[in-house]
Amino acid sequence: MHKQDDTNPTEPGHVLTLERVLDAPVDKVWRCWTEPELVQRWFCPRPWQASNVRIDLRPGGEFSSTMTGPNGESFDTMGVFLEIEPRSRLVTTDAFRPGWRPGDRAFMVAEMTLDATNDGRTRYVARAMHWTADAREEHEKMGFHDGWGRAAEQLEDLAKSL
Amino acid sequence: MHKQDDTNPTEPGHVLTLERVLDAPVDKVWRCWTEPELVQRWFCPRPWQASNVRIDLRPGGEFSSTMTGPNGESFDTMGVFLEIEPRSRLVTTDAFRPGWRPGDRAFMVAEMTLDATNDGRTRYVARAMHWTADAREEHEKMGFHDGWGRAAEQLEDLAKSL
Repeated sequence: MHKQDDTNPTEPGHVLTLERVLDAPVDKVWRCWTEPELVQRWFCPRPWQASNVRIDLRPGGEFSSTMTGPNGESFDTMGVFLEIEPRSRLVTTDAFRPGWRPGDRAFMVAEMTLDATNDGRTRYVARAMHWTADAREEHEKMGFHDGWGRAAEQLEDLAKSL
Repeated sequence: MHKQDDTNPTEPGHVLTLERVLDAPVDKVWRCWTEPELVQRWFCPRPWQASNVRIDLRPGGEFSSTMTGPNGESFDTMGVFLEIEPRSRLVTTDAFRPGWRPGDRAFMVAEMTLDATNDGRTRYVARAMHWTADAREEHEKMGFHDGWGRAAEQLEDLAKSL
């Protein structure tokens, strides 16, 4: 159900990729990615939970949230949007704070693309592009495929329910 | 003639700043920053010389050049534009290649702002915001203030001549 890109040595961007066909139309998947009250319902694989989702949907605008675990663990994710093509493509990164201020760490760029299938579903591709091979490996060991995969299932369920 | 910001510990972005009033109107300074054939005439402090300037003036678009030294030293700078406000503000970074691919190193964000003075000159502020305090210090030791200062003088001379 998932595909892992090999890093192309001629092109930077140590990449991890998740591809799915979601049983929901593009418009609803797009809403789930861009409306804070919807994002918090699918963004973390349960039993983790996202809250305080802040979305300023423009290049350089804030994209941040708090992630809370089942034992009360909590951490903040902070980043910005890089590019927005409505109902088609969304690019974010943790490398900046709003105002293009460099953040604590430039770890990855996340790129999400949506394409309508002939039967009204959504081809969903989520790519994590890392600054270093070590970061990519770290992300994979943190459970990229399982975590992003389960989040995509939650995304699908939510989009179908809208 | 230059000012060095202290890093504000409550805000990321270890900053070096250059401020000048350039004896040329905003429109001409903007042209010098955005037209490749003009950029290469001022961008490196002489006797260094910029060439192969590539400008794709949109968020995520390429901003790259080759810098050549008096003894044949040569290196490429590669990056992208983050934000463009015509005749007012330009933000670039070396953190990405086109397509938002993470680059070799996320070193700094460069932000340039232009404001017209009452007498038709240009208040020019160039800020280098670094990912780490070490990067900021490295940049300062490389000669940020002298190098960016002399480049600003070349920029002023060129803009005046247009």
